[in-house]
Amino acid sequence: MKFLETTEALMVKNKTLLCVGLDPDPKQIPDRFLKMPNPIFEFNKVIVDATKDLVCAYKPQIAYYAALGAEAELSETIQYIRKLKIPVILDSKRGDIGDTATMYAKEAFERYQADALTVNPYMGGDTLAPYLKYADKGVVVLCKTSNLGSGDLQDLKCGSQFLYEIVAQKAAQDWNQNQNVLLVVGATHIEALQKIRQTVGEMTLLVPGVGAQGGDLRAVLKAGLNSKKQGLIINSSRGILYAGRENVAEAAHAAALKVVREMREVL
Amino acid sequence: MKFLETTEALMVKNKTLLCVGLDPDPKQIPDRFLKMPNPIFEFNKVIVDATKDLVCAYKPQIAYYAALGAEAELSETIQYIRKLKIPVILDSKRGDIGDTATMYAKEAFERYQADALTVNPYMGGDTLAPYLKYADKGVVVLCKTSNLGSGDLQDLKCGSQFLYEIVAQKAAQDWNQNQNVLLVVGATHIEALQKIRQTVGEMTLLVPGVGAQGGDLRAVLKAGLNSKKQGLIINSSRGILYAGRENVAEAAHAAALKVVREMREVL
Repeated sequence: MKFLETTEALMVKNKTLLCVGLDPDPKQIPDRFLKMPNPIFEFNKVIVDATKDLVCAYKPQIAYYAALGAEAELSETIQYIRKLKIPVILDSKRGDIGDTATMYAKEAFERYQADALTVNPYMGGDTLAPYLKYADKGVVVLCKTSNLGSGDLQDLKCGSQFLYEIVAQKAAQDWNQNQNVLLVVGATHIEALQKIRQTVGEMTLLVPGVGAQGGDLRAVLKAGLNSKKQGLIINSSRGILYAGRENVAEAAHAAALKVVREMREVL
Repeated sequence: MKFLETTEALMVKNKTLLCVGLDPDPKQIPDRFLKMPNPIFEFNKVIVDATKDLVCAYKPQIAYYAALGAEAELSETIQYIRKLKIPVILDSKRGDIGDTATMYAKEAFERYQADALTVNPYMGGDTLAPYLKYADKGVVVLCKTSNLGSGDLQDLKCGSQFLYEIVAQKAAQDWNQNQNVLLVVGATHIEALQKIRQTVGEMTLLVPGVGAQGGDLRAVLKAGLNSKKQGLIINSSRGILYAGRENVAEAAHAAALKVVREMREVL
């Protein structure tokens, strides 16, 4: 499948911009799952089954799997989601020189068969090329991140522009030859989101930070939608995964539906 | 073991600043290894045995293992090296928000028991904190990388300084409370290396890009040594790993010795 096409088709079909982040933390997963042979996969499966009609993508964060040596469960999770014809963004924030980036691209797109991955632009455009040449895949470049310290480098003024604006500009002008670039813009920075939307035209933005991190959904939609009332993939992880310990499925569905209803009111 | 102490002790004992990068590429590993049950580990073992008296550290690049699903062989490799009391730098260039960074720190320091890891500063100081609190471990922050496109962001002028100088300054002033920060500075940028040495005082720098990437060893030593004639960990990967296909061990030893002799002439 083509990542951006499939995501946009699901946005229309499911009337949603929601992406659910699959960040399985054993400290927060109920005990009954932890007793199963594949606890993380089983937990993810319940979450996916409960939310699959409310999302345009899923985003497993690879660190949660790597810390536990749960590569097999990550694979299983991705295969399960792709069988439902829903795209998977592998959140890995990779960044390295060309030969190594080629290996990271193989990890994401061949080993795990992810439909998109997140990457870090600090090392420069040549380090993004090995991902970008997979034209059907999405390459989601960090631009203005949601964390408190994101300004340390991203908000430095380089001439008249913030560093994150230069990243947005390069993404739109230099790196997007295959029309497969997206940017990460945190929901906690509305002004930056507005500027980035102006810089990148219709480009799709992945927006973390709604929910647990405190971003305001309506403000994000107002500042970030493109001219087609799309162009945003809005991620929520903890707020949905851990909405209820007893009734994981019902609570996850209700939490996702609450976010999606708010989106539908604006769209 | 304490990463920096152990590395410095080996620099003195082995009269070397060499770190061998373990980037096992099946296309370049001789066929006789590929027929073994653990080809990557067996190849690494031959390289390590042939070079262990000539190095101050080893640096496996995790992408090469991740692309192949060779996590077990990465673990085996690291355990083998640590039994020799040689420190391991896991080259992973991680970077993510706090909770996720905590998981990446667990991956590197607990799952793999690496002695140091490489990280990306683009997301800001708060995203480095989860690694830095492991006071005995080395946290190697990307500053000025060896690739051609490194200037895209790193050479942007922010006021009177290049972006990479600001990273060096923050590393020295803000992030180094536990005296466990190092910086990556490519051998292909001698002027930057000089500036960074001036900015960070005695801090140890990890220098890739000598050998296959074209960096000049003598120029690196001249620009980068600290006042103790140390402060540099100079990495070579392909030039040593793939020095000979028939006689892997002898060729690797000879290639490493050649670099180390050149170092000893200057030291």
